Amino acid sequence: MSIYLDHSATTPLDSKVLEKMQPYLTSDFGNASSSHSFGQEAMKGVDWAREQLANLFGCQFKELIFTSGATESNNIVIQGIVKAFCANNQEKKYHIITSKIEHPAIIEVCQELEKQGLIETTFVGVDKEGFVSVDEIKAAIKDNTILVSIMYVNNEVGTIQPIREIGKMIEKVNKTRIKNIELSSKKAGTFDKLYFHTDAVQAANYCKMNAPYLHADLITISGHKIYGPKGVGALYIHEGTPLKSINWGGHQEYNVRPGTYNVSGIVGLGAAVELINNEQFTMHNEQIRKLRDKLIEGIKNKIDKVKINGSLGNRVPSNINIAFENAEGESMLLMLDMEGIAISTGSACASGSLEPSHVLSAMGVPPVICHASLRFTLGKGTTEQEIDKVIEVLPPIIERLRKMSPFDK
Amino acid sequence: MSIYLDHSATTPLDSKVLEKMQPYLTSDFGNASSSHSFGQEAMKGVDWAREQLANLFGCQFKELIFTSGATESNNIVIQGIVKAFCANNQEKKYHIITSKIEHPAIIEVCQELEKQGLIETTFVGVDKEGFVSVDEIKAAIKDNTILVSIMYVNNEVGTIQPIREIGKMIEKVNKTRIKNIELSSKKAGTFDKLYFHTDAVQAANYCKMNAPYLHADLITISGHKIYGPKGVGALYIHEGTPLKSINWGGHQEYNVRPGTYNVSGIVGLGAAVELINNEQFTMHNEQIRKLRDKLIEGIKNKIDKVKINGSLGNRVPSNINIAFENAEGESMLLMLDMEGIAISTGSACASGSLEPSHVLSAMGVPPVICHASLRFTLGKGTTEQEIDKVIEVLPPIIERLRKMSPFDK
Repeated sequence: MSIYLDHSATTPLDSKVLEKMQPYLTSDFGNASSSHSFGQEAMKGVDWAREQLANLFGCQFKELIFTSGATESNNIVIQGIVKAFCANNQEKKYHIITSKIEHPAIIEVCQELEKQGLIETTFVGVDKEGFVSVDEIKAAIKDNTILVSIMYVNNEVGTIQPIREIGKMIEKVNKTRIKNIELSSKKAGTFDKLYFHTDAVQAANYCKMNAPYLHADLITISGHKIYGPKGVGALYIHEGTPLKSINWGGHQEYNVRPGTYNVSGIVGLGAAVELINNEQFTMHNEQIRKLRDKLIEGIKNKIDKVKINGSLGNRVPSNINIAFENAEGESMLLMLDMEGIAISTGSACASGSLEPSHVLSAMGVPPVICHASLRFTLGKGTTEQEIDKVIEVLPPIIERLRKMSPFDK
Repeated sequence: MSIYLDHSATTPLDSKVLEKMQPYLTSDFGNASSSHSFGQEAMKGVDWAREQLANLFGCQFKELIFTSGATESNNIVIQGIVKAFCANNQEKKYHIITSKIEHPAIIEVCQELEKQGLIETTFVGVDKEGFVSVDEIKAAIKDNTILVSIMYVNNEVGTIQPIREIGKMIEKVNKTRIKNIELSSKKAGTFDKLYFHTDAVQAANYCKMNAPYLHADLITISGHKIYGPKGVGALYIHEGTPLKSINWGGHQEYNVRPGTYNVSGIVGLGAAVELINNEQFTMHNEQIRKLRDKLIEGIKNKIDKVKINGSLGNRVPSNINIAFENAEGESMLLMLDMEGIAISTGSACASGSLEPSHVLSAMGVPPVICHASLRFTLGKGTTEQEIDKVIEVLPPIIERLRKMSPFDK
């Protein structure tokens, strides 16, 4: 029996999603940019998908672009907004605020643009439970701050960040900026609005995604984290948000994201979002939470010296990040894998890295505990039988590894 | 009956390709960057695909990266090489040579980097048959030229460019550059090698793709032009070619192209390339050529005042680009579409544009003839029955449109 508990790395494709994709993998193979009926059939699929995403975000069709995934969406946000501002004012150095627990597709892009001398970045920290502070973000805002980018749900510890509160705070900042401009009787053109982006890749299965509710200008999502296909993502862009293209070569997606439409992928993303639109907050999430809590209880009852990383209070129901003192992460992963159980020691993007998790480190978790931590992420297909099996298999593995550890006495 | 004669816009997914993709759309859904066996199974698929592409290009595994398609591959080439050179020497302005008949994903990227003041570009022309001149390219090379990018097969007229000859000429240029450096006893570091890229998107079904044979440093291909899936492409990068990443956020593909592997897409591209490796130059292409020539004959016999655009001599067997004097392109397209026949007036990327084709214009075709031109592109599934039907349906359409034309007397 194979047990997959790494749903934050990727999810299986839902069979209903594959069913919706199937025509676009066979008969409806047209290029959606072609004028003839093969093209029109393909574009119908793209439009249908766009409708599902417009429902999810509560937005207009034209406020959405499809991309090749979250990494591209996040790069378009950071690079695109910096390019747009720099195009208007090449002299000025702009400022971006993000957090220490973001995905590398945010952190590394900011670091790269810093290196190029284009921006300065503030990376706000998190408390020991894994939460950013709205006040700390507010305090970091300067006159030249053009973007705040905070992830909705952390991929390693599952903590849900106060996105709506940040969005509302930023709206107030913008009102003050407008007021100050009016008072100083500068031209309206001198007003640099502050924009708000959230990488919602890990949130879409569990949290409210309505853009006006969140007061977000930019939202990233990915197909393969929500039981959709890999190689496709999207970006919500509130009307009027300045973004320059980072690639060129075709008129697709309002010139922001050129390239032939990945029709089956886009339809798959749409179908995955349709499932969310219909099922969210209802069927699966309570079941996932029950099984997650059962797994935590089972582990705590059978294994001593374990510690949950991050808050359990405000975390998606699928995530457990837990440290097994004096047991080494990669070894636990391998031994569980030999029992057919797939989990991870952190994010897939950082797998193989010897560095301690940047997320746990930001939470003040000591390196030795980072390296003893595992991430279990449940999915809607996870069964009670699977959880029972993990609870049965895990204790002897931990015991064996602890015996091998020079630190365990 | 639907007849698809727009294979240069996109091709149907080969059923054998879909079959190879199927496991990765169902059971083998892992994230290829994950350490556990789900991840390893996914990576096996990626590796298998890489092997097919290494066979196609005659290259090493590490000389290949997977992308989201040709537009991204081409952007990585142009932006990436300029970034790499500029990182070493921020003062110098570099020079790129390309042609007037390239895809917008080359032309527009060069124009954009020109606008940013990073490069200057020479767009060489073509003769009236649609061919670039090796001598003209050679004459355009300057001391600061770092890249020549010439497409292998033109997407609109199907002409096969002298890629191998250009590659050999560039090798000689590099030998001279090295020699001059030695003579002037400058440091080796001051030697700027000239690199050669070919966008081979439209060539892979028909032409030799071996990189050492072509003397190419960089080669772009796309899945959906070779009976593979949309949303996936690749780039051959000869070892040592300087390319900086244009996106950041993950360690995938040697840090050049970050993001979760689109496993099913990559396997699909591999499977499409496997078909080429096994079947190219044999079964299909002779059949396609025969049907293409039959279509040309049929049209010429039944319709007067027609003219083939571009050379028939050195053109892929699938392409006809033909002008029907005094008949309007979009109207022909629509009326053929009503008969179930899908063709195009140019490239899908430019569909809906009122500008005359930049390719035909570069060949000296007057605007009025550009607007009267149609592109038929046959595929390996095209049947004689389909060609007969087109020959039957087309003449009355042309006749009707010419009657409506103020120019036809």
